[in-house]
Amino acid sequence: MVDSNAADSTRERIVRAAKAEFAQHGIAGARVNRIAEAARTSKERVYSYFRSKEALYAFVVGQELAAMAEATRMDPADLPGYAGRLFDYYTDNPENFRLLSWGRLEAGTERRDPDGPIAHVLRGKVGQIRDAQAAGRLDPSWEPLDAIALVGQIAATWVSQPELAASGSADGFDVAARRAARGRAGRRLVPAPGRDEPEDR
Amino acid sequence: MVDSNAADSTRERIVRAAKAEFAQHGIAGARVNRIAEAARTSKERVYSYFRSKEALYAFVVGQELAAMAEATRMDPADLPGYAGRLFDYYTDNPENFRLLSWGRLEAGTERRDPDGPIAHVLRGKVGQIRDAQAAGRLDPSWEPLDAIALVGQIAATWVSQPELAASGSADGFDVAARRAARGRAGRRLVPAPGRDEPEDR
Repeated sequence: MVDSNAADSTRERIVRAAKAEFAQHGIAGARVNRIAEAARTSKERVYSYFRSKEALYAFVVGQELAAMAEATRMDPADLPGYAGRLFDYYTDNPENFRLLSWGRLEAGTERRDPDGPIAHVLRGKVGQIRDAQAAGRLDPSWEPLDAIALVGQIAATWVSQPELAASGSADGFDVAARRAARGRAGRRLVPAPGRDEPEDR
Repeated sequence: MVDSNAADSTRERIVRAAKAEFAQHGIAGARVNRIAEAARTSKERVYSYFRSKEALYAFVVGQELAAMAEATRMDPADLPGYAGRLFDYYTDNPENFRLLSWGRLEAGTERRDPDGPIAHVLRGKVGQIRDAQAAGRLDPSWEPLDAIALVGQIAATWVSQPELAASGSADGFDVAARRAARGRAGRRLVPAPGRDEPEDR
């Protein structure tokens, strides 16, 4: 491990280049040579920071998940609002969704590791939801994991079905209309008590 | 093109082997050599039936989409029921979902071809939904494409977020509970008029 400022900036360039490479080609398809070239460094240097391509992918994903959580902040008392922020985040950062999707397809058991970072984050969210349900700030009839899963799906409606987005209309993809539909779906599914019920259905 | 019975069965073995190979490795990761080996034939023979790996993928996906449409039958007057059949289909055929997902990530513009088979199928579904809305058999306030997209998302909730399914509980993944949650979500989002309103919300 080298840790001068110049070295840190090489590392940052590697991480940035890796993110673009993985989003485009996936894990198996990514080439460490191309990452090194885009980061203006050598393959050996990449391996001095990250022991393998898979370790580099795991690092990039962890960083992105943290950035996404920070940008979207789950509020269990307002899940439709959270779904809206996720929708906007995916719309603004389609590469992020691609980055995660490759891992879902390619990674085997590691992403299902009950002690791994993803499981840890999920347990935190489940706890937040249970607390909000106990405090009467969220419909208690949803299993917390179902609520998280459904909100995630609604938010990803368009990024995960690109063939639907593309077939939209001759005018192209209307983000505002899709966001409105997503919002309506969120309010129907997981209404924020005292806020959403009257306006829908 | 060879068309004796023996040749047809070689072709069928190729298609079956290709489906498994693409579901596992995606388009870029698939190896025609491995497909030929699994189908007990030669690479040259594979190329005598399909001009390229991409053409073979497109054929397999077309076949799977047709099988899925046949098995799940969209009924625009009962979208929650349709979402349930899709959910069951994905649960029973997780490889099918993987097969389609690779194409969504890897394929570029071809899946967005406004004259392609996917766009054609979608236009058919949009027409069915508009007709049902005009006949009062479906809530007319949803844009047809939003309804299709949301129903698809709800149905794919668990197959597309494997990390959530895995973190479920110590008892493992409870399909019946997940199916119930999916059904409830479907009835909230796109109720079948005169059937679903009273029981939910």
